[in-house]
Amino acid sequence: MVPHLITALTGPINELEQRVLDSMPAIERWFRLEWMEHTPPFYTSVDLRNAGFKLAPVDTNLYPGGWNNLTPEMLPLAVQSAMAAIEKICPDAKNLLVIPEHSTQSTHYLANLAQLKRIFHMAGLHVRIGSIDPELKEPRTVELPTGGSVTIEPVVRTRRRLGLKDFDPCTILLNNDLSTGTPGILEDLHEQYLLPPLHAGWSVRRKSHHFKSYDEVSKRFGKLLGIDPWLINPMFNTCGEINFAEGEGMECLRTNVDALLTKIRKKYKEYGIAEKPFVVVKADNGTYGMGIMTVRDAKDLEALTAKGQDGMSVIKGGQQVHQVIIQEGVLTGERIHDAVAEPVVYMMDRYVVGGFYRVHAGRGIDENLNTPGSSFVPLAFAESTRLPQPGEKPGASAPNRFYMYGVIGRLAMLAASYELEATDPEAETYD
Amino acid sequence: MVPHLITALTGPINELEQRVLDSMPAIERWFRLEWMEHTPPFYTSVDLRNAGFKLAPVDTNLYPGGWNNLTPEMLPLAVQSAMAAIEKICPDAKNLLVIPEHSTQSTHYLANLAQLKRIFHMAGLHVRIGSIDPELKEPRTVELPTGGSVTIEPVVRTRRRLGLKDFDPCTILLNNDLSTGTPGILEDLHEQYLLPPLHAGWSVRRKSHHFKSYDEVSKRFGKLLGIDPWLINPMFNTCGEINFAEGEGMECLRTNVDALLTKIRKKYKEYGIAEKPFVVVKADNGTYGMGIMTVRDAKDLEALTAKGQDGMSVIKGGQQVHQVIIQEGVLTGERIHDAVAEPVVYMMDRYVVGGFYRVHAGRGIDENLNTPGSSFVPLAFAESTRLPQPGEKPGASAPNRFYMYGVIGRLAMLAASYELEATDPEAETYD
Repeated sequence: MVPHLITALTGPINELEQRVLDSMPAIERWFRLEWMEHTPPFYTSVDLRNAGFKLAPVDTNLYPGGWNNLTPEMLPLAVQSAMAAIEKICPDAKNLLVIPEHSTQSTHYLANLAQLKRIFHMAGLHVRIGSIDPELKEPRTVELPTGGSVTIEPVVRTRRRLGLKDFDPCTILLNNDLSTGTPGILEDLHEQYLLPPLHAGWSVRRKSHHFKSYDEVSKRFGKLLGIDPWLINPMFNTCGEINFAEGEGMECLRTNVDALLTKIRKKYKEYGIAEKPFVVVKADNGTYGMGIMTVRDAKDLEALTAKGQDGMSVIKGGQQVHQVIIQEGVLTGERIHDAVAEPVVYMMDRYVVGGFYRVHAGRGIDENLNTPGSSFVPLAFAESTRLPQPGEKPGASAPNRFYMYGVIGRLAMLAASYELEATDPEAETYD
Repeated sequence: MVPHLITALTGPINELEQRVLDSMPAIERWFRLEWMEHTPPFYTSVDLRNAGFKLAPVDTNLYPGGWNNLTPEMLPLAVQSAMAAIEKICPDAKNLLVIPEHSTQSTHYLANLAQLKRIFHMAGLHVRIGSIDPELKEPRTVELPTGGSVTIEPVVRTRRRLGLKDFDPCTILLNNDLSTGTPGILEDLHEQYLLPPLHAGWSVRRKSHHFKSYDEVSKRFGKLLGIDPWLINPMFNTCGEINFAEGEGMECLRTNVDALLTKIRKKYKEYGIAEKPFVVVKADNGTYGMGIMTVRDAKDLEALTAKGQDGMSVIKGGQQVHQVIIQEGVLTGERIHDAVAEPVVYMMDRYVVGGFYRVHAGRGIDENLNTPGSSFVPLAFAESTRLPQPGEKPGASAPNRFYMYGVIGRLAMLAASYELEATDPEAETYD
């Protein structure tokens, strides 16, 4: 049942795993103290890349889909975490409204909604799904191929509150990343908790803010473990005012790509890594794997304006790209059945509740896997329902490997927490 | 791997299961609100008896052993709950001292200690085991048949604190029920959390206090679900000043046994139950299944003073019996491989984290199973790592059955919380 996972068994990554395992009490205490000071995002998924010589988060999603990819054995952890999260936010909550993405034709995405509904139902809430898509006028019920069905209803907005017909929720959970901007229908709600907050949406959020926070988190964590933070942190820089369609801002891009490649080359030399460095150019906002490009040489950028612009100039929801982040590319050294794989870690409140491998048979080890054609292997982490096994050979124990992934996933979640604090518009009013 | 569990499939218990499942959000919310007002015990195990027509807790243990009987799949839930518990009590905790029972020769009990150590290590603490047994002068390491080893060290008491050599814990966890009285070595500790508190020990605790609290809890829960609380509550009364050796107080015992049997008979008639009523006479304090006797007729008590007194007059630790609780006997309708079985539910903080069946091949359906010769079948609840399955036929789904057991287990835990509040000596000083 569990696909055989081929992990790079040599190099610094196993030293890192060993150090992470050995430092478990210190790490857990460190997180415990961090969560005293900072509020975790309500739920989070983090895409990781394990290059064998380094392990780093490359994307932190604050509106995670794909909950249906978690195995049934993982769900009780999610339910327990959901209970803890609800208790903190709104202990007397009865009703929860989940707001999905607009494009809800995909049965995978609908199965994700059904799973979220199930988790929060088990945690003690009446859950209904209400779309803010103005196209939806009537409730729509879709049968799922895996059994069961999902009903999506049009939301009803009153002057002060958002709900459904005969359903007034105390808490509203967004499973919609607001790529197209903050909809007015979600603004000025009274005595309703909206989670995550509006400024976590991709119309406000910037990857560069996130990775700036992650810089800080990884430095402090590196100090705790006595490791070079580079081993868990992808370097990056940014360019503003880029317009691929018009060819504007390309000089900045070339300079920054070149500078970052030089920095990576230096690090590779320091660690004796024989791989070819590359960077990934992404829209600073946006999600869904759109607007992402692998660049191995600044000269490649010439081709970009010619043929690559269609992919880069528009991201999900039709936004023009203005600012880009240039991030150190992290190879993935993991394979499932010869296909390139990257781990995805799921968290609810402060707890790691599961994960799976994203697998793409048609992609290279230095390419983005979150594109059409990728397939999910949700069973790869099945053994994560076992506790870490101290004393196992580094790299040889799936639960140990998963524990390390969970630690790095939580570091990215902590960075998101810093990020949301720094960008909170309500916090600014106190300055 | 999972033993086939034969459960009574007819009668009110399946209606109860259905009602519990249907009311899940209301039940979880009710618990959520209760835990806003009341503090759950640090950890709890509850013995249940499922008669097919009623389901009731018969013993609530605030120093649970047997953690080694939980399957590895259940442990991540325990770790997550331990994290939540520690965070509330002492978030900057580094060191945890576990105080075991004095008689630690049993490898089962030692495996329990190893499991507890593992759970709290994973939750982020340095854990060591320190005995308050004055007989232990040197650290003692025992290899476990299941692999690994356990080291028990003698505690070091200073004027203000308790610890080990070179180990100063912020939190002390008792896994010793203090049957022999409150040891002075645990008194007057400064700035150390002692969990559970001293008044949870069996030298202070009374079963009658617990079941009085459970009366209240089950009434309120019965109202929430619209059920007769008797379906989840064993009736009881008490006699003080009993001395079996001297034959004192036997008149009170006879009268009360008779009165309770009459009440049970009336209830059986109301529900059309053809079983023969019985009561269980137990020491009002004490544990370990000692001093427990099944009585089917007040006349049986005559024999007691003659032959049964050896078993009744002394409980664990050599205490004389003075007060007894006479409790409605609850048949167990569950079987594993023809052996009589009763479920045990484990909780950490407010969360159900697992359970197993206690099985005794040599005992009847109306007898106490917690005696020598019982064996544990820890795999019976393996499917509890799955979430409840709404829509399944009542009684046919192990996860649904386990969810109901978890609800009743939590009711008993809540009663223990009420009980500890009512008996808290520090709370009394405010009166």
